[in-house]
Amino acid sequence: MGQVRDQRGDHIRDQSDDQSPDESTRKETSMQDSILQEGINEVIGTTHLNAAPMGIILRGGRHTLALFKRSHTAANIVGDGWFVANLIHDPVIYVESAFGDLPDDAFTTEIIDGTPMHRLAAAEAWVAFRAEVIGESSEAYSILLTPIKEEVLVRSIRPVNRGFNAIIEAAVHATRYIMNHDPELEWLIRHHLALARKCGGEREKEAAGMVERFIGEDSL
Amino acid sequence: MGQVRDQRGDHIRDQSDDQSPDESTRKETSMQDSILQEGINEVIGTTHLNAAPMGIILRGGRHTLALFKRSHTAANIVGDGWFVANLIHDPVIYVESAFGDLPDDAFTTEIIDGTPMHRLAAAEAWVAFRAEVIGESSEAYSILLTPIKEEVLVRSIRPVNRGFNAIIEAAVHATRYIMNHDPELEWLIRHHLALARKCGGEREKEAAGMVERFIGEDSL
Repeated sequence: MGQVRDQRGDHIRDQSDDQSPDESTRKETSMQDSILQEGINEVIGTTHLNAAPMGIILRGGRHTLALFKRSHTAANIVGDGWFVANLIHDPVIYVESAFGDLPDDAFTTEIIDGTPMHRLAAAEAWVAFRAEVIGESSEAYSILLTPIKEEVLVRSIRPVNRGFNAIIEAAVHATRYIMNHDPELEWLIRHHLALARKCGGEREKEAAGMVERFIGEDSL
Repeated sequence: MGQVRDQRGDHIRDQSDDQSPDESTRKETSMQDSILQEGINEVIGTTHLNAAPMGIILRGGRHTLALFKRSHTAANIVGDGWFVANLIHDPVIYVESAFGDLPDDAFTTEIIDGTPMHRLAAAEAWVAFRAEVIGESSEAYSILLTPIKEEVLVRSIRPVNRGFNAIIEAAVHATRYIMNHDPELEWLIRHHLALARKCGGEREKEAAGMVERFIGEDSL
C-alpha cells in the first residue's frame, strides 16, 4: 500500500474570477444545476480508470475542486478535460479508492458529448463534468467543473449512520496522517474508527479494519 | 434553553434475551424488516408531541433503543407503547429537537392500528413501532421496538456532506457535555463545528450557530 491518494488542496485560493470563460459556448451543453448540494460534496471522483475520494465545492452555483498537482486525477484532468463525481454509500469502496487502485472492472464507460468517460459501476448516482484548470499554486490546481450530464441509478432512503460518517472522517484524516504523522490526526482516526465499529454495520467494520491496516503498515 | 434531551443510555445492557415475548401475537401486524439499516440509526424519535434525536440499534433483525428513564420519550413509551422513527436530513431540526421543544405544528398524526401516533411533518420517511420496556437499570430502560408501519415520502439522493455529519456529532457531544463539562467533549464539539462551517451549506451553518449558543449559554 504505497501510494496515498490525498489529492485535496483545500488551501488553494480559487483564481477563476480573474478569467472570462466563453459563457455562450459553455451554456450549449451544460446543465444549470446538479444533484450536488451547496457546501462540500464528498464524492468518489473518477477520471480515466482512476478513482479517489474528493470534495467538490459548490458555492454560488459554481462547482470547483482543489487538487494536488502530483495526483493521477490532476494529470488526467489536464490531459482529458473531464471528471465524474460518483455518489455511493459503500464505506469499503471509499476506503479502497482512498488507499489503493480499484480494478478496471470497477468502472463503466459512458459516452458523453462523444467522449468516453469512466464512472464507478457501483455508483448510486453520477454527474459528469467538463473540467478545466483555472488557477494554480506551486503544489495544487484549482479546477472549475461544469456539469454536462447526470444520472440517478438508485434512489434509496438512507438513515443517518454515525459509523458510515466516521469512516469518511477516518479515511480523510488517514490520507493526511500518512504524510505528516500528526498525533492529533492519529487521535481523530482512532476516535472515528471506534465510532465506526460501535455504530456501523458489517461494511463499516470491514472498512475500519482496512483503515487500521493502512495506518498500521505505515507506522512500521 | 434549560432542558437537555440526552436520552441515550448506550451503556445499558439489553436484557430481552431473558424474556419470551408472545411471537404469534407480534407477527399479526408487524413487518419483517424496516427501512432502517444494520448498526445504529440516528433518527429523530417522536412520541406524543415530543421529539428528540436518538439512536435505534438494529442488530440481528432486532430494533432496540436505550433511554434514560427521566426523559419525556421514556415516560411516553411506558404510558403509550408506541414510538416513531423519523428520517430527515435537516440539521436545524436535529439541533432544535436536541436542545428544545418543537412546536406542536411540527407534528402530524397518523392513525396506525387504531392508535393516533405523532410523526414529524417534515419527515422524509418514518417507521412506526410498538415499543415495550424489556430491561432496565437504575437510570435507563432498554426498549424493544417492533416495526408496524413505514412510509417513504421523499426519495432523494443525498451527497455525503461532512458538514451535515459534523452537526450530528456536535449535537450528540453537546447534549453530554452540558452534563459533565468534559474538556475532551468540548474539543470534539469545536472540531465538528469548524467542520460544519467549512463543509456545510446554509442550514449546517445555522445549526452550528445554534449548538454554539447552547454551549455558550451553558458555560455562563
